[in-house]
Amino acid sequence: MDARTRKRLHDSLFMKACRREPTPRPPLWLMRQAGRYLPEYRKLRSEVDFLQMCKRPELAAEVTLMPVRRFSLDAAIIFADILLVAEPLGVGLNFTKGEGPVIYRPVRGTAEIEALESVDVAESLGFVFEAVRVTRAALAPDLPLIGFCGAPFTVASYLVQGCGSKHYERTKLLMYEAPAAWHKLMEKLVRISIDYLNGQIEAGVQAVQIFDSWVGALSPADYRKYVLEHSRTLISSIKSGVPVIHFGTGTAGLLELLREAGGDVIGVDWRIDLGQAWSRLGDGVGIQGNLDPVVLLGGAEEIRRQTHSILKAVNNRPGHIFNLGHGILLQTPVESVAALVDAVHEHAGHV
Amino acid sequence: MDARTRKRLHDSLFMKACRREPTPRPPLWLMRQAGRYLPEYRKLRSEVDFLQMCKRPELAAEVTLMPVRRFSLDAAIIFADILLVAEPLGVGLNFTKGEGPVIYRPVRGTAEIEALESVDVAESLGFVFEAVRVTRAALAPDLPLIGFCGAPFTVASYLVQGCGSKHYERTKLLMYEAPAAWHKLMEKLVRISIDYLNGQIEAGVQAVQIFDSWVGALSPADYRKYVLEHSRTLISSIKSGVPVIHFGTGTAGLLELLREAGGDVIGVDWRIDLGQAWSRLGDGVGIQGNLDPVVLLGGAEEIRRQTHSILKAVNNRPGHIFNLGHGILLQTPVESVAALVDAVHEHAGHV
Repeated sequence: MDARTRKRLHDSLFMKACRREPTPRPPLWLMRQAGRYLPEYRKLRSEVDFLQMCKRPELAAEVTLMPVRRFSLDAAIIFADILLVAEPLGVGLNFTKGEGPVIYRPVRGTAEIEALESVDVAESLGFVFEAVRVTRAALAPDLPLIGFCGAPFTVASYLVQGCGSKHYERTKLLMYEAPAAWHKLMEKLVRISIDYLNGQIEAGVQAVQIFDSWVGALSPADYRKYVLEHSRTLISSIKSGVPVIHFGTGTAGLLELLREAGGDVIGVDWRIDLGQAWSRLGDGVGIQGNLDPVVLLGGAEEIRRQTHSILKAVNNRPGHIFNLGHGILLQTPVESVAALVDAVHEHAGHV
Repeated sequence: MDARTRKRLHDSLFMKACRREPTPRPPLWLMRQAGRYLPEYRKLRSEVDFLQMCKRPELAAEVTLMPVRRFSLDAAIIFADILLVAEPLGVGLNFTKGEGPVIYRPVRGTAEIEALESVDVAESLGFVFEAVRVTRAALAPDLPLIGFCGAPFTVASYLVQGCGSKHYERTKLLMYEAPAAWHKLMEKLVRISIDYLNGQIEAGVQAVQIFDSWVGALSPADYRKYVLEHSRTLISSIKSGVPVIHFGTGTAGLLELLREAGGDVIGVDWRIDLGQAWSRLGDGVGIQGNLDPVVLLGGAEEIRRQTHSILKAVNNRPGHIFNLGHGILLQTPVESVAALVDAVHEHAGHV
């Protein structure tokens, strides 16, 4: 990458917000912006298996570009999945139609944790690095590309439960009853994730997001005892100078602990007031969020009202990245995303 | 009720904690303490339909008494269901085995809200009042009996969705797109709930709990706009002098607003530190909670550790009612409840 391109990326709205520098308006991107709500995505998905879409770099790049071709978004995020790491671990992974990911051989105890394959990230997940290179080359030179991974807790909870869960009983019981095995599993995931994120950075992403999507299931005491140190090790091992967004849902009771674990920007869902969240987080950290994805199922007027209400609460405090509180819902009309983009851009004019 | 019995109830641990008077240890009861984890409950349930168990006062009383016969709990809660109100509203209600409640004719718009039957509470829910009378007569005279209802939002969300929901899309869209109809529905539910709770009080309960179990799905802004005033009307219409416990899950971002809506005691789940929650709630209100129900699936040692950790965080501040953060899980071993009771009692000795 030449110096001029590097400077343009560095000066982009998104990168400035990550560094908490003032911007004329907050940058905007959407979790799962390259997803099933897009007709062009559904078309491709009907022809190609989900895992193949991730594994073929030219397809992953194509999907990554879909939303930024349609909408004036301020960052792209590489198309991949937080569970890609499950496959090289040897637990069996499948994405069933409509039911989400399934792990065929869930990890339930010490023996299964010991038996996990050791993972050479470059070898087994190198296709993601290649997708990053292809995407970066095709992307507008001033548009930042975000890399990501699942946080160790969220990935571990899938490995243990085998699928999505309501109560996370098996995960919590593993923590309580076999803490040494639990910590071993977390350490293993952290080691892989460090290589995985730094590999994405080397391949060309400008920032990374760590998805601790299900961490909101934990009590603050359990988070501190079983998770915090592992997330902190991961975050502190990311190449210096690359912003880290630390995201979770249902974290209104965990914010201070997420902050303690690290991240330049803390991502929150809609179930907390952004002003309150930020004042609890304190200075020295940015915030990402936090429109309820359901609002995008309503009309343009409601989208505009709720978007402006969030922007008003933030009051141009530097370091805000506008996003949904969680992934965009598959039934979202594409016009709603356009309305959201307009509402964010329009507000800027009023400041 | 004679004056001596009234005095004994008034001086019970539970009632003192509701009034934030000092107690030698916090009182303890468990949400869904009369439920499927009890073998005697499962036996009865295998013979009688769930709705019939609620509707036959001698059975409801029998079930209410089951847990307090087994364990040294400090309050009983009348056996009923927050959705009993759905039947007289004319929307069709069934409790399917293993799948939870189902509403056959969900309420999706203005016309359906207008078409809801008007409810004479004494006539259509009088069986609950009778169950309270039978239970009160059979219960130890110093053991308080708790009445309850679903909060208007949580009941409305079931009526609109038709069953449990992940995203509450239909409920939120009704709010956004037909706010007048939404408020009409909420007002209707509040009117019924006022008569229903005051009727339970007249029949003999000493305190009431309002279950806003799913309110944590809302953003604070939506809660304020669409819910707060209705919960406030309900709570402020409860017979003076009767403590109200205002409970919800996933409310770490809503606490101040729940407090604003009212209640002598705020019930929280395990996803917030009890000390932090209470300091945000301020003086003048008690707190109920907040052990993670999954902990009861672990061994006695873990139960003891987590129970003591909560008690330590509260540090004998008057007004704490010990409870789980949500209903007891059906796979909970009865020995775990015994271990929890012991842990709470034992801690008292250490203070």
